[in-house]
Amino acid sequence: MLFHVRMDVNLPASMPEAEATALKATEKAQSQALQASGQWRHLWRIAGQYSNISLFDVSSIDELHQLLSQLPLFPYMKIQVMPLCRHPSSIREDDR
Amino acid sequence: MLFHVRMDVNLPASMPEAEATALKATEKAQSQALQASGQWRHLWRIAGQYSNISLFDVSSIDELHQLLSQLPLFPYMKIQVMPLCRHPSSIREDDR
Amino acid sequence: MLFHVRMDVNLPASMPEAEATALKATEKAQSQALQASGQWRHLWRIAGQYSNISLFDVSSIDELHQLLSQLPLFPYMKIQVMPLCRHPSSIREDDR
Amino acid sequence: MLFHVRMDVNLPASMPEAEATALKATEKAQSQALQASGQWRHLWRIAGQYSNISLFDVSSIDELHQLLSQLPLFPYMKIQVMPLCRHPSSIREDDR
Amino acid sequence: MLFHVRMDVNLPASMPEAEATALKATEKAQSQALQASGQWRHLWRIAGQYSNISLFDVSSIDELHQLLSQLPLFPYMKIQVMPLCRHPSSIREDDR
Amino acid sequence: MLFHVRMDVNLPASMPEAEATALKATEKAQSQALQASGQWRHLWRIAGQYSNISLFDVSSIDELHQLLSQLPLFPYMKIQVMPLCRHPSSIREDDR
Amino acid sequence: MLFHVRMDVNLPASMPEAEATALKATEKAQSQALQASGQWRHLWRIAGQYSNISLFDVSSIDELHQLLSQLPLFPYMKIQVMPLCRHPSSIREDDR
Amino acid sequence: MLFHVRMDVNLPASMPEAEATALKATEKAQSQALQASGQWRHLWRIAGQYSNISLFDVSSIDELHQLLSQLPLFPYMKIQVMPLCRHPSSIREDDR
Amino acid sequence: MLFHVRMDVNLPASMPEAEATALKATEKAQSQALQASGQWRHLWRIAGQYSNISLFDVSSIDELHQLLSQLPLFPYMKIQVMPLCRHPSSIREDDR
Amino acid sequence: MLFHVRMDVNLPASMPEAEATALKATEKAQSQALQASGQWRHLWRIAGQYSNISLFDVSSIDELHQLLSQLPLFPYMKIQVMPLCRHPSSIREDDR
Repeated sequence: MLFHVRMDVNLPASMPEAEATALKATEKAQSQALQASGQWRHLWRIAGQYSNISLFDVSSIDELHQLLSQLPLFPYMKIQVMPLCRHPSSIREDDR
Repeated sequence: MLFHVRMDVNLPASMPEAEATALKATEKAQSQALQASGQWRHLWRIAGQYSNISLFDVSSIDELHQLLSQLPLFPYMKIQVMPLCRHPSSIREDDR
Repeated sequence: MLFHVRMDVNLPASMPEAEATALKATEKAQSQALQASGQWRHLWRIAGQYSNISLFDVSSIDELHQLLSQLPLFPYMKIQVMPLCRHPSSIREDDR
Repeated sequence: MLFHVRMDVNLPASMPEAEATALKATEKAQSQALQASGQWRHLWRIAGQYSNISLFDVSSIDELHQLLSQLPLFPYMKIQVMPLCRHPSSIREDDR
Repeated sequence: MLFHVRMDVNLPASMPEAEATALKATEKAQSQALQASGQWRHLWRIAGQYSNISLFDVSSIDELHQLLSQLPLFPYMKIQVMPLCRHPSSIREDDR
Repeated sequence: MLFHVRMDVNLPASMPEAEATALKATEKAQSQALQASGQWRHLWRIAGQYSNISLFDVSSIDELHQLLSQLPLFPYMKIQVMPLCRHPSSIREDDR
Repeated sequence: MLFHVRMDVNLPASMPEAEATALKATEKAQSQALQASGQWRHLWRIAGQYSNISLFDVSSIDELHQLLSQLPLFPYMKIQVMPLCRHPSSIREDDR
Repeated sequence: MLFHVRMDVNLPASMPEAEATALKATEKAQSQALQASGQWRHLWRIAGQYSNISLFDVSSIDELHQLLSQLPLFPYMKIQVMPLCRHPSSIREDDR
Repeated sequence: MLFHVRMDVNLPASMPEAEATALKATEKAQSQALQASGQWRHLWRIAGQYSNISLFDVSSIDELHQLLSQLPLFPYMKIQVMPLCRHPSSIREDDR
Repeated sequence: MLFHVRMDVNLPASMPEAEATALKATEKAQSQALQASGQWRHLWRIAGQYSNISLFDVSSIDELHQLLSQLPLFPYMKIQVMPLCRHPSSIREDDR
């Protein structure tokens, strides 16, 4: 089950640099584990922005929310979720 | 070179059904040819909307515009384009 | 799996009254069948608007899109979908 | 009398963690009491967001405002209220 | 129970003048009957716009929706509804 | 001369509670004096929000601005003003 | 009493050219009469748009609405009104 | 050459009162000098807001930007600029 | 004097194809004459849209408005104008 | 390959002046080096705003993102990117 997710990161200017660096390192590790498991299917940077476009492949909405809300940067991100489905013109049975 | 494209289709209510059917058939054929060539990399339907999320993989901006502006539904679509690049946390060298 | 759906209906002024009446009757029948099957879990009118708030209970995103896109009024509606999940403060295991 | 309520929570980054934890615990208790009394009829989390969709069942607008404005998180929430009524296509006399 | 209602009227340019005149006359009569009954408590024109600000005093949300949706201009209006309640600084027990 | 005014209050999280309490008390006193004089004709709370809808009855735009800009909460409010006039369908000569 | 008015004109594509020409001529004559009387104090074109910025100097809100709603192009304009008053830093007692 | 400028002032709550008072005094002096020179042609307060509508009469865009960006409140203002020109219905050759 | 102009073209679906073709040919000729004279300094297509970004180099706002409002597609375009000036970090005295 | 970029700078009020001055000096040096290399093709100030319009000429989206994200002011800017291509009415083969 595919969800299109856009994340816009906005760290407060007052956050100490060491804290920001640590947060980003944990975020990266967690993101890469989810990519390796196949749940975080695609991850792209939007050019010129501290934002990403991601595709999640999960078996329920609850699973999606667990993944997103446990990200270290969750409190500092604006997140938008759109459910996707097969397009009738797609040439792939299971485009992921 | 990857571009994220969202297309929202809006056919005028006054278009004869035969014309709409023909337009959609040509659109589908053209879309599938571009998918087969690898230029239209992904194509998903947004649930509940006459809209899609697409990933295009092209070698120039001009190529992207040629592909999009020659689609039969182009005059009836609102199209938004965002350039994408590699995300530093991606586990893939070339995520497409 | 729950989805929150808002539908705003906008029939073109040029539609003959008989056609509108027929469309609405089919829409009503189809909606009531989906309510009876449990897929269209809740259906409310927003006061003062030709709009509704609905809760759908389906087993996949594809099922949701099939239900919505086959509604007779689909071409005349603006539809917004939000995936919902269990709230940690809910007193119900399975609030529907 | 049903009201559709969306709450978006935004705690200031400067709030001490202990204060935030205490606030959330009181909020949860108060929310669960209102759910038990039947006034807070439904409570769902919007996937990927620190936001909820709720249905309130109250006997007056004043009662609704009292409930909402006394929530511990009230000063930190953006709240949107929409009055709902019976939809003519609903199969239930009293859909709640 | 008070509701704040804003109505923006937008008649299609294609409507014959006689039809528009008849619609407005019926609308006016119906509006004045509701004002006389006390349900349509206030009615003001917004300067420079074909729009009004109204206060409705009704005993239920269903009653409000019945009144609004039976107005002859309902299909041609954008309507926004906000529930109002007593302000703690008001000097009147029952400001209407 | 009637003006429709919406005020949305937003006190900074950093304001000491004693200062906030004092500000609100002065605001209430000043608001009640203006209500008593007939200049602040109506004052309602919007349900679920720290906002009000007000009607001012003043003899000039300058008078309106003086009243609003001298409110203690003025620096913390977003204010929107709309001039109102008699509606041709109103049954009252002087609806206030 | 000064009001700042922005008008955006949007004539329907279906309007016969002769009708449009006649409307604009009447509009111009009426506008110039109001300028001559001093009620339509300033009139500027916004560069690149079929829009104007105007200053009206009237003795009441009702007078302003009468002037605007009787303009021949009124049904085809989006109009926004803002009440203005003396700025404390203005060097003129009566800036018009 | 006329430019329509809207300025919305937003001083940070953390600014010491003495600093704010000094800033505003310098702003006022600078504004009045520019009014006296004829460059800042009109200056009005928008009722109910810490905002103004201004008309600038300058000989180049660079001159306009110099004037605006050297204002003491520039860092705390949202500024919107619109170029204006003669309206074909204006009765004045040179409306300023 | 430089102005940044964005034009979004929207031809009505009801326009006969011959009329559209003729309009576009005249538009192209007129645009190329203005480019040759140096007044229409740059002209780019926005990828995926029937829109352009243009830079105009004119000696007055009136000249700019004359150029834009005499374009054959003017009635069918949404146009946004922003005045530009020299950037203090530019390495060119006269970047055009 | 051309990209249209708009940057809106927003330095936090709490940043010490020395830090701001240093940041801007580094930004200026880096911007001028990129202009000299031909990658930052045009740079204009938007009149009345702490914002610029820029044209970048790069060989890939990754190159564009590297340039933008390494700017010293990147954390304090809102950046919008639009891919541009040749306009069919342009008189230049390679308008830059």
